[in-house]
Amino acid sequence: MKKESVGIVETKFFKIAKDLKLESGKTLSDVTIAYETYGKLNKEKNNAILVCHALSGDAHAAGWHEGDKKPGWWEILIGPGKALDSEKYFIISSNILGGCQGSTGPSSINPNSPKINIGEKDSEDIKYGLDFPVVTIKDMVKAQKKLVDSFKIKKLLAVIGGSMGGMQVLQWMVSYPKMVKKAIPIATAAHSSPQQIAFNEVGRQAIISDANWKNGNYYLSGPPENGLAVARMVAHITYLSNESMYEKFGRDLKDKEELSYDFTMDFQVESYLHYQGESFVKRFDANSYLYISKAIDYFDLSSNGSLIEGFKDVKSKVQIIAIESDWLYPSDQSKDILTALNANNVEVSYNELKSSYGHDAFLLEGGQLNYLVSNFLSDTVVKDLMYHDITTITKDTKIEDAAKKMLKEHVTHLPVIGEDEKLIGIITAWDLSKSIAIKCNDLNEIMTKNVKTCTSNDPIEKIASKMKKYDISCLPVVDEDYKLKGIITTDQISHLLTNS
Amino acid sequence: MKKESVGIVETKFFKIAKDLKLESGKTLSDVTIAYETYGKLNKEKNNAILVCHALSGDAHAAGWHEGDKKPGWWEILIGPGKALDSEKYFIISSNILGGCQGSTGPSSINPNSPKINIGEKDSEDIKYGLDFPVVTIKDMVKAQKKLVDSFKIKKLLAVIGGSMGGMQVLQWMVSYPKMVKKAIPIATAAHSSPQQIAFNEVGRQAIISDANWKNGNYYLSGPPENGLAVARMVAHITYLSNESMYEKFGRDLKDKEELSYDFTMDFQVESYLHYQGESFVKRFDANSYLYISKAIDYFDLSSNGSLIEGFKDVKSKVQIIAIESDWLYPSDQSKDILTALNANNVEVSYNELKSSYGHDAFLLEGGQLNYLVSNFLSDTVVKDLMYHDITTITKDTKIEDAAKKMLKEHVTHLPVIGEDEKLIGIITAWDLSKSIAIKCNDLNEIMTKNVKTCTSNDPIEKIASKMKKYDISCLPVVDEDYKLKGIITTDQISHLLTNS
Repeated sequence: MKKESVGIVETKFFKIAKDLKLESGKTLSDVTIAYETYGKLNKEKNNAILVCHALSGDAHAAGWHEGDKKPGWWEILIGPGKALDSEKYFIISSNILGGCQGSTGPSSINPNSPKINIGEKDSEDIKYGLDFPVVTIKDMVKAQKKLVDSFKIKKLLAVIGGSMGGMQVLQWMVSYPKMVKKAIPIATAAHSSPQQIAFNEVGRQAIISDANWKNGNYYLSGPPENGLAVARMVAHITYLSNESMYEKFGRDLKDKEELSYDFTMDFQVESYLHYQGESFVKRFDANSYLYISKAIDYFDLSSNGSLIEGFKDVKSKVQIIAIESDWLYPSDQSKDILTALNANNVEVSYNELKSSYGHDAFLLEGGQLNYLVSNFLSDTVVKDLMYHDITTITKDTKIEDAAKKMLKEHVTHLPVIGEDEKLIGIITAWDLSKSIAIKCNDLNEIMTKNVKTCTSNDPIEKIASKMKKYDISCLPVVDEDYKLKGIITTDQISHLLTNS
Repeated sequence: MKKESVGIVETKFFKIAKDLKLESGKTLSDVTIAYETYGKLNKEKNNAILVCHALSGDAHAAGWHEGDKKPGWWEILIGPGKALDSEKYFIISSNILGGCQGSTGPSSINPNSPKINIGEKDSEDIKYGLDFPVVTIKDMVKAQKKLVDSFKIKKLLAVIGGSMGGMQVLQWMVSYPKMVKKAIPIATAAHSSPQQIAFNEVGRQAIISDANWKNGNYYLSGPPENGLAVARMVAHITYLSNESMYEKFGRDLKDKEELSYDFTMDFQVESYLHYQGESFVKRFDANSYLYISKAIDYFDLSSNGSLIEGFKDVKSKVQIIAIESDWLYPSDQSKDILTALNANNVEVSYNELKSSYGHDAFLLEGGQLNYLVSNFLSDTVVKDLMYHDITTITKDTKIEDAAKKMLKEHVTHLPVIGEDEKLIGIITAWDLSKSIAIKCNDLNEIMTKNVKTCTSNDPIEKIASKMKKYDISCLPVVDEDYKLKGIITTDQISHLLTNS
């Protein structure tokens, strides 16, 4: 199936009717959540998937805003024919509480500002700034739930997200276990590590140290652009692997032949970081950066020091995806989640993206992500993929005839069936070679009798694992009477990867 | 031998008589190099060791400045009885060119300042600032050579340093191959990686973005403390391993029981970073930070893209030391140096510190460093350590008597000698056990005949490797006639590690 875009989309705004009680004990009123949706909610309201974004993301996950040059941030995964298929699913993506891309955050108007009644004040002057309460991942998820409730959705088919988006996924599993059928936390952790906190604190200090920050009251005077740019630069380094930086930049110079011996930019990697910093300050609010990074630091799903206890109520089916070259959210953190979920008998699988991109791979590795996520979501079963029209032989077939059949039909496996169409064995090209080597003419002697099989309703994931485990490339599909119904090969499964 | 301190020391100052021509083509006049020395230069002037410091180091590597609360930065390695033994060696440690701890750098008075003749100007106003030329690692080493020359030292016994100090070591090997007998580059690289450049650039941007920086002209108005603190904080994260941060801080809160839900410091790791930042700005010049980090970025010993070519003139004996948990200067960078030196037939060894400390381990792992460095420097040979007074048996000794002897002398190995004192075999406690198991009474049947041996002039390093390779804990020492002269055990060698 061709992968397409959802096309032109618009951001919408949802107002939470009541005050939102926060984890800190404080309350927020007049909360707005910016969101986008792709696809249609079905009548049963059971095809909704919630997408959660990372630190610098927004509600615009896919498609194009009128006039834009770039699509949404997860265009690789969302759209017709992609894993988050807008022809099948109703996809909801919202900007987090505390953000600055349409949802209520520190750069929003404070409805309770003491200055609000003065009337003549510039509206920039009545923005929250540091009067905005500290929000947590749990608060963000609570606000998302209000949005989901507004669609009268009782249960989400799935919640998915990477990095801080993955934290929200985990929080959903814990806060609203009955509302999450499937969960896909990617490149994330059940708590921030001291190293992650340290990098966040450096970013915050860069902002706070900027003379333009003015204790967060910069909305009239102009934002702390330098500090925010430095925060983004250091964060960006942590999103890339050492290896990918070598591949991308090496020690190449930027627009010069020789070292400059001054403090202009010498290396391409410097220029790249500057670009990242500069483009970020155009679209992001420095105070939001403070609040969101703090929410990440605070995140810890352990209960009484135990992650197993923290996950005790989880009901979802979970697919954990880690990235092998991610050193900011190393795969050990994902494995900790796996272990704790296993201890709670949660149905959980673990996969690692083979990628040298580092943490950023969750935004880049479209092929692998589409493969993993679409299989996990679609519940593809063997019958969706298997060949029905198969060439078989019987135990009386002569070896020479079997070889001819194989050649003619261009296959490497020939199931051997009895009179009642029951499977009695299988012959491979390799078996035929063997027969020559050992000078044997009896099919019965060379065929494999104890054949591994599957049924047509087996999930593809399970079958793929089985074939990997036994190192076989083909499985006969049988019914309950062991009658042969078809055949499935690793080739067919792997095609899912390239062209789902 | 007891390890002691060199005691009270003073920093001295060396003035380079002539102008110093720099790699950039520019020239520096009136250059001063701050330095300290420990121990005495012998008559032959062949016991001098040069110590090179890292980014934030200084000339004060060991001992105590009058009234100070902390000793020099490499006190663990320098002093009587330590690897850099001030009773044996003459140790020179100097502050780098471009630094701010006594050597000429951007915070020094500019003798050519156009303002200098005005007379009434504050001396702070005639400091270099950004008029200081960009210096390189090669320039730093060139200045160090002038200092070494001033002692009339023709050849350094060794040059040693970690991190940027290791870069200087490598540069010495290349710039002055005949002057370096032994070289010990630790936790370093032959060129900065794009990730290292990126982190340095973030630090520079933090400084440059600080409104107090004023294009480097802050010596009258006050330094860019916030920016420099942020630079130090981010650098400090890169000096620690993820693992050591977990061990040191975990997610422990700082002086509070619960999260504060504000932007004060919540976690101990934040408090630690702040402390690092604050104490750094008290002792370090922000402009020096810019210049030194730039020198690190520029460092690249490749010649025509080849490190093998870059090292083609190296004559030194080299001991490379990497750190297994160092992610800023990962061991692969040290292995690249090893490969390129091997390709040039340089006598080189490679060791990794077993440490979870990360890059900082070169300042912390005293035990391992003293062991590796002292062996490499001292040329300890077997006769320095071996037991001379050994218990032996002859091939006619009864098994029972051998067992009694072993018990009485409390040994696990009994060399078997012939009439002419030649070694003919060895019996171990394990052999005796075997004799019981197989009910054998003939010593001749159970003893090991093809014994691995060493000679009394074998270097300890070589013997340690041999014992490791063959997994044996004891080697008989023989002379050229295969007469037994002594015995050496892994116990004796390992004692070097704990108490040299």
